[in-house]
Amino acid sequence: MKIKALYWSSGKLFVLDQRLLPHRIKYHCFYTHSSVIQAIKNMTIRGAPAIGLAVAFGLVLSVKERNFYSLDDLKEYFEAVNQKFIQTRPTTVNIRWAVERMKSCLNRCIEAKCSILHVVKQLESEAKKILKEDLQTNLSLSEYGAKLLNKNSIVLTHCNAGALATAGYGTALGIIREAFKQHKIRKVFIDETRPYLQGARLTAFELQQENIPCEVITDNMAGYFMRKEKIDAVIVGADRIATNGDTANKIGTYTLAILSKYHKIPFYVAAPTSSIDTTLFSGKGILIEERSPEEVAMIGNQRIVPKGVTIRHPAFDITPARLITAIITEKGIYKYPYFF
Amino acid sequence: MKIKALYWSSGKLFVLDQRLLPHRIKYHCFYTHSSVIQAIKNMTIRGAPAIGLAVAFGLVLSVKERNFYSLDDLKEYFEAVNQKFIQTRPTTVNIRWAVERMKSCLNRCIEAKCSILHVVKQLESEAKKILKEDLQTNLSLSEYGAKLLNKNSIVLTHCNAGALATAGYGTALGIIREAFKQHKIRKVFIDETRPYLQGARLTAFELQQENIPCEVITDNMAGYFMRKEKIDAVIVGADRIATNGDTANKIGTYTLAILSKYHKIPFYVAAPTSSIDTTLFSGKGILIEERSPEEVAMIGNQRIVPKGVTIRHPAFDITPARLITAIITEKGIYKYPYFF
Repeated sequence: MKIKALYWSSGKLFVLDQRLLPHRIKYHCFYTHSSVIQAIKNMTIRGAPAIGLAVAFGLVLSVKERNFYSLDDLKEYFEAVNQKFIQTRPTTVNIRWAVERMKSCLNRCIEAKCSILHVVKQLESEAKKILKEDLQTNLSLSEYGAKLLNKNSIVLTHCNAGALATAGYGTALGIIREAFKQHKIRKVFIDETRPYLQGARLTAFELQQENIPCEVITDNMAGYFMRKEKIDAVIVGADRIATNGDTANKIGTYTLAILSKYHKIPFYVAAPTSSIDTTLFSGKGILIEERSPEEVAMIGNQRIVPKGVTIRHPAFDITPARLITAIITEKGIYKYPYFF
Repeated sequence: MKIKALYWSSGKLFVLDQRLLPHRIKYHCFYTHSSVIQAIKNMTIRGAPAIGLAVAFGLVLSVKERNFYSLDDLKEYFEAVNQKFIQTRPTTVNIRWAVERMKSCLNRCIEAKCSILHVVKQLESEAKKILKEDLQTNLSLSEYGAKLLNKNSIVLTHCNAGALATAGYGTALGIIREAFKQHKIRKVFIDETRPYLQGARLTAFELQQENIPCEVITDNMAGYFMRKEKIDAVIVGADRIATNGDTANKIGTYTLAILSKYHKIPFYVAAPTSSIDTTLFSGKGILIEERSPEEVAMIGNQRIVPKGVTIRHPAFDITPARLITAIITEKGIYKYPYFF
């Protein structure tokens, strides 16, 4: 069985604890929406599309946790839970997207005057549908993306935009998987991606499982290898894309885009259209989440910064659209200038 | 007492174990040149100028370890030890520089037909002289460098080019120390500097001791903060400078230079003239040391990359001269184009 970031079974949500990878494969079984919120906040589950899916199923759990007197009662409660989910990770737009999808489903049920039991069933099947769609989305954008690569390419990726970040297959790694099948991948450089080491721990784990040749490097080596070995393309995922194409993604992405421009290497963003925030004209409106300094200071049980020294930890950065050669979605390939 | 990377006392070399910082301050006492060679290889001591000093004292230890029949005998042995030192860290030119200094001293003694006992004394006083000169060099280049900064500057540095990398005061950090005294430093961003974390462990430790305001960031955040907060200058050290100004320094320096160019931030290299390799026209001739993958894979006792995955570990990169705004030495400030 291929490893999955999460799955739904017998009315419960099973979530892989990605903090323990690559050393341990452990799934948590969640019965309550608050445990899902906790898992999103503490990075048990991560990756924008996977977080969106966790939110959808978390909302299903929430309506199963209580008895409701009326549809209005349910709706009021649902709204309150929505807000809690939206506040978990401020940069990731897929959370709001999943909330909106589930809310529309609820509204349809209310309009149709469904029974409460039926509403719960409908929400559950909507979440399952979102999961299925996300996988299909990835397969589709991967096919588009693979077209951009030539035979025997060396590509570089950052963080983890793989099966572990989605319903399966992945976005940036989906393209790499698909291109590898088509003999278009010679080697993948993987940025280790400090501080959470998603590249070293998760992407290396995924590529190793599929025998795709890869080399892990520290983030500060990307420039060296662009100059020293011919890198043909950089492919990354996205946490939020403004309508002009400005893209928020894991910290370090912006630096890679500048390095790519300097070395004349195409720089690709791969993401489902659910990562596009149609309410935002540009990246200026994207809030960058600052996470705990402890996540930088501690690696496992090892402290690497002297106590008392200030540490900064923006979890994302914004890459201006003009540095992005193409944005690859399930609907096709878009090139600068972008008008989503 | 200010912390020192190494000191010489009663005919023995005391070397601070920088691998244990910032948690423990432990000096090793070395009696033999082989233990010094080991300490250079395993990064107990690091930083180009400090390594040069360790080599000079290591050579003194070597001639104290044996009895010699004649000056020729001593010279032959000395040559063999020289070669062992030169092979410890292939990128760092200060090793060869220190060897040459000590060799000249020996040759002068041989020409003067000194006694073997006197030769040993002369070599010891030459090494002490080099140590003294290095400190003076740093004070001098720091004064030059501080002139380049305006009041209340925010600067960024990479790795550790501080007191711990030299006889004291430091090169890049020497400039920062001097500028801070002149109220020219508002804040210092410190790249943590993977994989050895010299920034997080050593530079943060040094700046904390002197109450210079600083913030540790992961290497992949430099671009973000250049864009987000006004960074006024980047200052780094050097391991080898070609006569055209191409500079080998800690991996990640090249990326910082490109980021600086993109954001129109002055990019300064601070180094003693002993870091200039007058035998090399350009950076192309500089050999880049590839160190053990384990140094990337392991942080303390924690493995961060799945077993079996390939890891790359170039320890340095080369920044082309055209990306360097100025090279600051004890003899003054040089600007592009460079002709050393």
